[in-house]
Amino acid sequence: MDVSGLGEFGLIERLRRALPPAGDRLAIGIGDDAAAWRSGAAFTLATTDTLVAGVHFLPGRVAWHDVGWKALAVNLSDIAAMGGRPTFALVTLLLPPQTPVEHVDEIYAGLAACARQYGVAIAGGDIVASPVLAITVALAGDADGAPDLLRRDAARPGDAIAVTGPLGGSAAGLYALQHDLDAARPEVRDAIARHARPRPCMAEGLAAVRAGVRCGIDVSDGLVQDLGHVCEASGCGAELIDVPIDPALAALATSGAVDSDAAFAMAAGGGEDYDLLLIAPAAAIARVREQHAGVRVIGRIVAEPRRVRVLRDGVETALPVRGWDHLRAEPAP
Amino acid sequence: MDVSGLGEFGLIERLRRALPPAGDRLAIGIGDDAAAWRSGAAFTLATTDTLVAGVHFLPGRVAWHDVGWKALAVNLSDIAAMGGRPTFALVTLLLPPQTPVEHVDEIYAGLAACARQYGVAIAGGDIVASPVLAITVALAGDADGAPDLLRRDAARPGDAIAVTGPLGGSAAGLYALQHDLDAARPEVRDAIARHARPRPCMAEGLAAVRAGVRCGIDVSDGLVQDLGHVCEASGCGAELIDVPIDPALAALATSGAVDSDAAFAMAAGGGEDYDLLLIAPAAAIARVREQHAGVRVIGRIVAEPRRVRVLRDGVETALPVRGWDHLRAEPAP
Repeated sequence: MDVSGLGEFGLIERLRRALPPAGDRLAIGIGDDAAAWRSGAAFTLATTDTLVAGVHFLPGRVAWHDVGWKALAVNLSDIAAMGGRPTFALVTLLLPPQTPVEHVDEIYAGLAACARQYGVAIAGGDIVASPVLAITVALAGDADGAPDLLRRDAARPGDAIAVTGPLGGSAAGLYALQHDLDAARPEVRDAIARHARPRPCMAEGLAAVRAGVRCGIDVSDGLVQDLGHVCEASGCGAELIDVPIDPALAALATSGAVDSDAAFAMAAGGGEDYDLLLIAPAAAIARVREQHAGVRVIGRIVAEPRRVRVLRDGVETALPVRGWDHLRAEPAP
Repeated sequence: MDVSGLGEFGLIERLRRALPPAGDRLAIGIGDDAAAWRSGAAFTLATTDTLVAGVHFLPGRVAWHDVGWKALAVNLSDIAAMGGRPTFALVTLLLPPQTPVEHVDEIYAGLAACARQYGVAIAGGDIVASPVLAITVALAGDADGAPDLLRRDAARPGDAIAVTGPLGGSAAGLYALQHDLDAARPEVRDAIARHARPRPCMAEGLAAVRAGVRCGIDVSDGLVQDLGHVCEASGCGAELIDVPIDPALAALATSGAVDSDAAFAMAAGGGEDYDLLLIAPAAAIARVREQHAGVRVIGRIVAEPRRVRVLRDGVETALPVRGWDHLRAEPAP
């Protein structure tokens, strides 16, 4: 069997079982947004994500500056999804030897802009020759310590499910790039910006842990799939009552550039939004919303294990696309 | 200009200048074996290294188990070269979707064996599709705090230069693989093992900081080049009086399988030995040798800046190979 048959999540589970036990110092290991281990009275957080040219971005269709920004931003989102503060990054560049130096300069300018904006220092890294261009960022962070973390396994029946912003903008931007939509139109430009230059929700993650939220995840694989990860880890189910659609995506649907069913599927399953799902009793969510007005409740956790039900205008809906698996030819089952 | 014209070290220096300043918490940034930042009274260390199929190892010619071992071991060597203790690793796999699952199983078995042997836990990582197979490990470690670190910039004229073991075995192993030498011969087998399954010098690095050594580096790019990094960072020069040759390489030279000049060049410049260079007053080196009998003095630091002189049987020698640059077609200038 090859790895595409097993899929990303099957392979992760298989490899996890091959590893020696981690010991008491590791509080959160494989399977959450970031790892967390004890460092004195606090936690060190660590996460890593990779962008491969032609797989995760379209060379020539997105600016190299944005590729550098996104390589760091997607890691920042994982630290935000733990309720932590980012500190230091290691940057690995895999470069074909013919890569123009200006492309690397632009990638680094984007990385540096993102690092400056979120207070991260690039502390080191590695540069190697490779037949394909890829960027791996490993990012460390601080967290105050248990129970002040946003875990995947802390959802309880009756909890509210909230999201920090409307979804599907990134998927709409990818669609716009792939279908050559006119970038002079503001909704096309906005969608492409959501795709190429995501904003990690650092402040929302910190506000959530301070408000007593103990369960969270970032929307990277797609709302339904990421919520499924929470349900699996927490042994519960979820009902989505209201899937908020990004304004740029909504404008594309209104103009007919995107079919309305496709727009709903992009919001529910498109991925790469990098908003946060926060799962907690309604009172804790309300405290987060006092500081971040964009936070809205979109559903609730139910006891029935592992099932994510999606309601559209009150009617249960089957989604054509359920999220992203990095190794399969098709979306995750 | 493309990146091969700038070279690995030129590109690193160029990118370092593009980054915002790091702030006081970062004690050691880009340019040492690992980064070090303050975590309470101690330091957190962090390093990352990548192996790319066809660039850093020969698929089909080395066991996948050994690829997994080496991916972690080369990172452990960087933590050893700071005098630290490894703690947690993140593992990123770039996998062509057609990769057989058994290959990934073997890679992970090798990683797990190395992790178990050196007390490291795999805390997380990332798996992505890619046209080329590659493994990136990011490794964190602990160190007790300044001045108890092995830095590159702490060499002083008059210091002794010591190495933890004889060199060139890894280069001999690569030569044996490339030239199909008979692996039934013990010296061929030993050289290939040195290349495929390096042993990080964790205990020697810790003993060195405890003995008062404050300058060190691991031999990854090649003895002369790595010593050149120390001289550049410290503003001094070096004289190598005695380049110790790995026994397997010496046996290959004796049998005529490797020319004796080539054997000397492999020991002085071959790289990937993952022994440590320790640079300190002779009394400190002597204290390390009390615990690690294999440590031997091979030269001394001189005031003349940046020049590494190599003596062979007392006569200054120009080396045909000076070490490894990951982006250039040829060895580093």
